[in-house]
Amino acid sequence: MLRVFICGGSGYAGGDLIRILSNHPGVAITGVTSERSAGKTVGNLFPHLRSCSNLVYEHLTPPENIKKADLFFMALPHGESQRAVDFFFQRGKKVIDLSADYRLRDPLTYERWYNVPHTFRGALQKAVYGLPELYRKKIKKAALIANPGCYPTGAILGLLPAVRNALIDSSSIIVDAKSGTSGAGRKSDVAVSYCEVNEGFRAYAIGTHRHTPEIEQEVSLLAGREIAITFTPHLLPADRGILTTIYAPLLKKTGVSEVLKKYNDAYKKEPFVRVLDYGLYPNIKHVRGTNFCDIGLKVNERTNTLVIVTAIDNLVKGASGQAVHNMNIMMGFDEKTALDATALFP
Amino acid sequence: MLRVFICGGSGYAGGDLIRILSNHPGVAITGVTSERSAGKTVGNLFPHLRSCSNLVYEHLTPPENIKKADLFFMALPHGESQRAVDFFFQRGKKVIDLSADYRLRDPLTYERWYNVPHTFRGALQKAVYGLPELYRKKIKKAALIANPGCYPTGAILGLLPAVRNALIDSSSIIVDAKSGTSGAGRKSDVAVSYCEVNEGFRAYAIGTHRHTPEIEQEVSLLAGREIAITFTPHLLPADRGILTTIYAPLLKKTGVSEVLKKYNDAYKKEPFVRVLDYGLYPNIKHVRGTNFCDIGLKVNERTNTLVIVTAIDNLVKGASGQAVHNMNIMMGFDEKTALDATALFP
Amino acid sequence: MLRVFICGGSGYAGGDLIRILSNHPGVAITGVTSERSAGKTVGNLFPHLRSCSNLVYEHLTPPENIKKADLFFMALPHGESQRAVDFFFQRGKKVIDLSADYRLRDPLTYERWYNVPHTFRGALQKAVYGLPELYRKKIKKAALIANPGCYPTGAILGLLPAVRNALIDSSSIIVDAKSGTSGAGRKSDVAVSYCEVNEGFRAYAIGTHRHTPEIEQEVSLLAGREIAITFTPHLLPADRGILTTIYAPLLKKTGVSEVLKKYNDAYKKEPFVRVLDYGLYPNIKHVRGTNFCDIGLKVNERTNTLVIVTAIDNLVKGASGQAVHNMNIMMGFDEKTALDATALFP
Amino acid sequence: MLRVFICGGSGYAGGDLIRILSNHPGVAITGVTSERSAGKTVGNLFPHLRSCSNLVYEHLTPPENIKKADLFFMALPHGESQRAVDFFFQRGKKVIDLSADYRLRDPLTYERWYNVPHTFRGALQKAVYGLPELYRKKIKKAALIANPGCYPTGAILGLLPAVRNALIDSSSIIVDAKSGTSGAGRKSDVAVSYCEVNEGFRAYAIGTHRHTPEIEQEVSLLAGREIAITFTPHLLPADRGILTTIYAPLLKKTGVSEVLKKYNDAYKKEPFVRVLDYGLYPNIKHVRGTNFCDIGLKVNERTNTLVIVTAIDNLVKGASGQAVHNMNIMMGFDEKTALDATALFP
Repeated sequence: MLRVFICGGSGYAGGDLIRILSNHPGVAITGVTSERSAGKTVGNLFPHLRSCSNLVYEHLTPPENIKKADLFFMALPHGESQRAVDFFFQRGKKVIDLSADYRLRDPLTYERWYNVPHTFRGALQKAVYGLPELYRKKIKKAALIANPGCYPTGAILGLLPAVRNALIDSSSIIVDAKSGTSGAGRKSDVAVSYCEVNEGFRAYAIGTHRHTPEIEQEVSLLAGREIAITFTPHLLPADRGILTTIYAPLLKKTGVSEVLKKYNDAYKKEPFVRVLDYGLYPNIKHVRGTNFCDIGLKVNERTNTLVIVTAIDNLVKGASGQAVHNMNIMMGFDEKTALDATALFP
Repeated sequence: MLRVFICGGSGYAGGDLIRILSNHPGVAITGVTSERSAGKTVGNLFPHLRSCSNLVYEHLTPPENIKKADLFFMALPHGESQRAVDFFFQRGKKVIDLSADYRLRDPLTYERWYNVPHTFRGALQKAVYGLPELYRKKIKKAALIANPGCYPTGAILGLLPAVRNALIDSSSIIVDAKSGTSGAGRKSDVAVSYCEVNEGFRAYAIGTHRHTPEIEQEVSLLAGREIAITFTPHLLPADRGILTTIYAPLLKKTGVSEVLKKYNDAYKKEPFVRVLDYGLYPNIKHVRGTNFCDIGLKVNERTNTLVIVTAIDNLVKGASGQAVHNMNIMMGFDEKTALDATALFP
Repeated sequence: MLRVFICGGSGYAGGDLIRILSNHPGVAITGVTSERSAGKTVGNLFPHLRSCSNLVYEHLTPPENIKKADLFFMALPHGESQRAVDFFFQRGKKVIDLSADYRLRDPLTYERWYNVPHTFRGALQKAVYGLPELYRKKIKKAALIANPGCYPTGAILGLLPAVRNALIDSSSIIVDAKSGTSGAGRKSDVAVSYCEVNEGFRAYAIGTHRHTPEIEQEVSLLAGREIAITFTPHLLPADRGILTTIYAPLLKKTGVSEVLKKYNDAYKKEPFVRVLDYGLYPNIKHVRGTNFCDIGLKVNERTNTLVIVTAIDNLVKGASGQAVHNMNIMMGFDEKTALDATALFP
Repeated sequence: MLRVFICGGSGYAGGDLIRILSNHPGVAITGVTSERSAGKTVGNLFPHLRSCSNLVYEHLTPPENIKKADLFFMALPHGESQRAVDFFFQRGKKVIDLSADYRLRDPLTYERWYNVPHTFRGALQKAVYGLPELYRKKIKKAALIANPGCYPTGAILGLLPAVRNALIDSSSIIVDAKSGTSGAGRKSDVAVSYCEVNEGFRAYAIGTHRHTPEIEQEVSLLAGREIAITFTPHLLPADRGILTTIYAPLLKKTGVSEVLKKYNDAYKKEPFVRVLDYGLYPNIKHVRGTNFCDIGLKVNERTNTLVIVTAIDNLVKGASGQAVHNMNIMMGFDEKTALDATALFP
């Protein structure tokens, strides 16, 4: 049994990690931390986990915690994660970091967008960006995984075949994303209270959201040159799910069948990416609770534009599910272990 | 008192027409039709209208109905509206048509997108596109108003100052719109049933939605040349509201203040368009039940893109409210009469 | 013009007071207070009120505020309201208190349920319980109104004709109420955050909710003896509305027509109570944004039970609308002034 | 491998059966029927099931279908189920009927409430009411299971310990239940369309709902005498879940600890019933997607009333999950097989 430990388990991503890992036959969760809720049981904070976990939240004290596990999931706020990740990593533990702290290769980019210096550049250089569809081989050998952000997951998977195959003009990509409210985290904040969100819909952080450089980093690597992306997130009155609508000019007149072929080729061996038949578009409700990324495509011949729509569950494929996928790859488990849930519909 | 008659009053737009007109001090609703619900009261179909209307639905029999009113609101399905509109119009009545039948100036474009021939081209030539912010003067003298579609209202008002002032490259406009479910009408259809829509979100009719040529027609007129638009509608789990996020390349480096000035200049005298302070973005919840169109702006310097976000209530500014606004202009009422509601929040 | 002042205007009830009063032709709002938001505009806190109010929140400093108005609406938290109410009242101002501080006639009952002493018993003795359907005559002459709680409004209006006419055994009344989330107020609290409330439903404070003694007080007065009520509130995933389902044994076999007659007689002159036809039941969506209380009735002959269902908008009839109704009565305005809105549906 | 066949698999209960059974290691689904959708794939109707089923809907032709399986799940409309159930049952197949057709022991009661004669009384006499907590032993040996209705499941499990132990006066039981919209089925009906249900809440079929005699039958058997129940269902703006609030007078003064002990004793061995600590109340969101029934209790000493609150997922514990539970018991599988899901929260 692989012993895993969760640092920061009182948020929605932490709760979903507990839920998914409790169902993993090769794993034992040996502890979970929360500074604010230390001493409370998981069931106190998450009544829905009452029957699958008896754990009591403890304080994050890395020197004590380190003996408890072989692999550490870090679901701490960005900035706070840096040091703890480095601590476990430098002492030979496997680490999967769900924060943003080790995602951006260039520490200056990190500092510019997050307003925090990065003081663990040694570890940063060793971190692998944990998008299995892009970096499976590296993930297999990695000790430190930077688990991708939720928006970047939906955006990069949508763009990957188009950029890699140079179907589109990568300098004019527009990413219009819509996220369920759980993406904002579990917090006391009027802005995410029911009466503010329900029956509402709005854009926020247009052009300034911190996931922008993460999308740009990976798309630039795929394109082979520096790319800037126009990225707009929106807040949906729904619990879970991100729908990402992506627009880019086709470089030349390209038929539907060619586009479809590139997408199917790119993902045919991927267990969690489903390219839909032409004419079908994904719905966040059809991937809710799953690790799937569904992709729909439209070639708009009137404007010579490729429209790509992806749907993921932001807490699963966009966070905890992808983290477990990374663990499965790193530790040699079947990739789908604990990740084979069918969506709950309706 | 102006006598008005509503042809097709059993849908959501019809219901909102009754609601708004019942509150108009200069108007008397003399009748309302519904083929399927003839004989039932308005309160049977719309319990919320119980206290404001005692009308009984009757059949649409234009020769009998024509004597009952001076102005006819037509809220019939497209295709069905053509003949009835022509009947009233040719006999000297004022007509405000909420269907799509008289919106497209070119009958061939209409036939291509709606798969119905247009057989009343004489009336079509006289129709005025009823977007007051664009055509107030013509509306004043018009006898036949083609009331704009809901998506076009949000898109055109967002684009107007940018296109008219040549701030943007009109050949690369992307309109990503998200509509509440009432936009689909009041109907028996699994696709709009609660359990399908709730907690879901999806794009539909990408590049093929019938509001596309309507947006293109008006933007082309503003731009002075033929424009094709990339338009994607989405279905929101909310009752009312359309949020439209619009992207276009800036033609040259343009500062925030210049963009804001063009928008404020364009709309400073408009009673129903509110340009928000820079940094604020609109929310459909803040315009719910109102005739406002709120506009937020973002100059993305990294990608040289102008991002425009507009919010309207699809049933009010996007349908019945705008129809009443047109009536107020045509008949010389104060423009805000019966349209001064504040949004219900939360 | 009547000058009114709102003490505590940053919550949902305060926001609705501003919305409703801004639409009242006989009233001018001369100020609004908020300790936390002093200095901000109403539009900062409530963007939907941007176009109807330019007021800036100020601190509640009664000695300064008192000159500003003839009538004071108090929407402060219970406990905090006591002193301010007394201050204005003792200096000859009209006061309508939306808190619970002056609703319970017996200060000991107040102290037992609210855990706060009542130190202004002189004012308390003069307060009139502001349920117009029960106390219209007293309200007309009152200077201090204790505006009813939201749950009590729905419960008492449902019970009034049955208890007054001794149709039911008042010692076995069960009130099962379900409230929209705005009833919990506008606050930073995980428990009312979107992801906790949405798709959820639960009972809370069973048998211990502070509105229990308020319902009991008024029902006891109607019954002519001390009555204890079994009251269970529930939290609905909806913004506004309270549906109250009330059960009581019929004292003797009573026909539908007799029950209906008692209800219609009790409310036939009431502008805001609508007794529905037998077989119809109310829906919170049909009274949203209105001051109506809709009532549906069922005589269950198999169990000899009367089932009464009422629907109100908790922020309007259950708070701010009723407060304005009380003001209209006190000041001699037509009772429906500013309260004639039709529900927004859908 | 147990071969199972689903008759009527295009509704929400059918969809959930496919979802749950696809995850059952001892079962193979050999076919699924739908008259309206014959020829379509499961993925056409339920995109969320795309990855877990390749089945194509076929017509229900019992003589042909009978060879395909050992056990038949029947999810047909009531009335239609009778004959097909009898057909399979008389030919030696195991049958689990999710319709109401075999739940009521007295065919006259069935005919009175369902307005359909029962013409298969032989089979009816052999049917076992499939509530495992009541009839586990009989279910083990049964060939024909009448799977309980959703409302009865929540009501009976809430009442069982109180009635069996004579804690309450069974002649005055009130059951106030609130169900998510999936309980109404997957259908084309304006009444369940998004804009009618969302932001609404209402009671329906007060005292006349067809689940009334089913609750009464089982509670009467527990009480040892004929019991009539006052039952009111309500429609919640949520996908899944039934919260049932039950009221009954305590027969004598009974302490909290005694009540709790009876409930804990009754359910301590039950894998799917969780009695919550005193002071906690269940939430439908905490059982969503699970086969749990959570129970909260309140002894109201002021009114000498026991208040019982239960929460289930209407499609799982209230339909398909309970059906699989019954199958597990009948066929000797571990009871929790395929039913160990943790709730998806949020």
